Amino acid sequence: MVLIEGEFGLINKYFAPLSKSAPGAANLTDDVAFFEVSAGKVPVVSLDTLVGGVHFFFEDPPRTLAKKLVRVSLSDLAASGAKPLGYFLSLSMPSDTDESWVAEFSKGLSEDQKEFGISLFGGDTTGTSGPLSLSLTAVGEAVSDRIVRRSGAEPGQSVFVTGTIGDSAIGLTLIKKMGVREAKLRSPDLVQRYLVPNPRVKLAPILRNYATASIDISDGLIGDLAHICKASGVSISVDYSALPISNPAKREIVANSTNKRLVLAGGDDYEIVFCCSPEDSSVVKSKVEEQGIVLTEIGRVTNRGDHYVSVIEGGSIMEIEDTSWRHF
Amino acid sequence: MVLIEGEFGLINKYFAPLSKSAPGAANLTDDVAFFEVSAGKVPVVSLDTLVGGVHFFFEDPPRTLAKKLVRVSLSDLAASGAKPLGYFLSLSMPSDTDESWVAEFSKGLSEDQKEFGISLFGGDTTGTSGPLSLSLTAVGEAVSDRIVRRSGAEPGQSVFVTGTIGDSAIGLTLIKKMGVREAKLRSPDLVQRYLVPNPRVKLAPILRNYATASIDISDGLIGDLAHICKASGVSISVDYSALPISNPAKREIVANSTNKRLVLAGGDDYEIVFCCSPEDSSVVKSKVEEQGIVLTEIGRVTNRGDHYVSVIEGGSIMEIEDTSWRHF
Repeated sequence: MVLIEGEFGLINKYFAPLSKSAPGAANLTDDVAFFEVSAGKVPVVSLDTLVGGVHFFFEDPPRTLAKKLVRVSLSDLAASGAKPLGYFLSLSMPSDTDESWVAEFSKGLSEDQKEFGISLFGGDTTGTSGPLSLSLTAVGEAVSDRIVRRSGAEPGQSVFVTGTIGDSAIGLTLIKKMGVREAKLRSPDLVQRYLVPNPRVKLAPILRNYATASIDISDGLIGDLAHICKASGVSISVDYSALPISNPAKREIVANSTNKRLVLAGGDDYEIVFCCSPEDSSVVKSKVEEQGIVLTEIGRVTNRGDHYVSVIEGGSIMEIEDTSWRHF
Repeated sequence: MVLIEGEFGLINKYFAPLSKSAPGAANLTDDVAFFEVSAGKVPVVSLDTLVGGVHFFFEDPPRTLAKKLVRVSLSDLAASGAKPLGYFLSLSMPSDTDESWVAEFSKGLSEDQKEFGISLFGGDTTGTSGPLSLSLTAVGEAVSDRIVRRSGAEPGQSVFVTGTIGDSAIGLTLIKKMGVREAKLRSPDLVQRYLVPNPRVKLAPILRNYATASIDISDGLIGDLAHICKASGVSISVDYSALPISNPAKREIVANSTNKRLVLAGGDDYEIVFCCSPEDSSVVKSKVEEQGIVLTEIGRVTNRGDHYVSVIEGGSIMEIEDTSWRHF
């Protein structure tokens, strides 16, 4: 831990209160923190770094930025079937960062801590001559041999996806085209999906009981399915007409057909795509829907080898030029 | 986890081999990693972020920079009495970062993994328009009620420090004055202490059995003792003539008496200063020396209240203008 001007004051005022339900955080007055894991479980960790100008716009509101940071990592934990416990935060701030920015940012963290039942465990705050940079190490717990990986998909299994896909990437396209204010007027739901994703934390217990392979969609549906194909040594076929697309996204696709590509390869959805045995399909579907989450069967694991994702539309295979998302 | 050009290639080539002894890291092919903690112990975590131009020079060799990053966090774990297990790494690189930089950086990590018996567990790699930025989350284990904090010092206890202090800060002053090449010619040991600190990992088992309060010296001896005073609600008196100062540091103090201040408040020592009961002093001293670590008694916890660190030299109290270190 390193001292910068005002670091201790900021920590004490805005971040220590976020750790008060975590005894091992020692009120953020120590260089180390501990946390407890339930008996028989192991700590499961996901680390994500968001850099200003690369992963978010400098004008993104600090409150929603805090939530995006938390949720991106919680989405990874959910896909693995782990239960979230808390997080460590590294914040590198330019010297002209306002205290009001920190106040709003910590408010976003506080709201999401309540939403997901997690706590701040520790972290570090530094200055930087570069853009604002945020790194979050989320910690969860799971039984080690029940952690869902990308590697268990088998031919014949069903492929499911939660929620709707493409919203966030289309929202981002609108923001880039017309600015966030105009984009919000045109399609508030799509912009909101980009600003504050909705990690499928409630899916975790179902995934660890039924999913053979799972991933959260951050790089794009096809890119992330390709990760499952590679890790599992299989190929997957997706039916385009089955993909869950929201009404606002459908409207944007009608307005501009290039948006269709964003449903398949746009990324930043933070929905979960997973495989399970066809015998388990109906029980999985009803358990997921009991949690208030829409679940859609979108395809099938076709065969061993190839490691290829194909998308079928109207009986023919669609060509996808770019299968993974690059940041703006 | 976010995709940037070449991220997967870099991870596969340079970082996945560093995780091969950690089954929970899944060869860095997944968004989450797990690690195991021994029965009855809890995970203990220290997070440190180093930003180019703030915490290190851009021309610092990547191999020593990697070691500094690892060692700064291992030093925190050691001061708490925890045993290190592994680490998560976040690397934000400017687009002009050379592959040779990554190769040398990963070599430094690899060497320190062997040195300290730790493994890479996971991480994230991103681009940035700003300076190179490194964030390391070190993970260790300890029995939760045996973690040594800053808060257990009591009046009458002895204050000990490991190794020698001031070397690193004087080394940094030389580098700033004459550049690293000239500084190395003049005083290689001091420059080396700045570039690659030596965390007192072997001290951890002794601290957890005997220390009442402990901290590693990153902000400077006086600044870090002040943290113990504040957390424990005590005052501490230090005898300047007892401070362990290396011969190269003594030479620089003779050449320039302002260097004397750096022994007290220079920082970046990564030695450990701790308190223990006077009855335990001799057994602690012999146990520490069995580990090949020089240990020096430098003062005493004087009384409750005040939260004041005083330094006695020749019977009078020295005035210290600036008790904590600010980065260059």
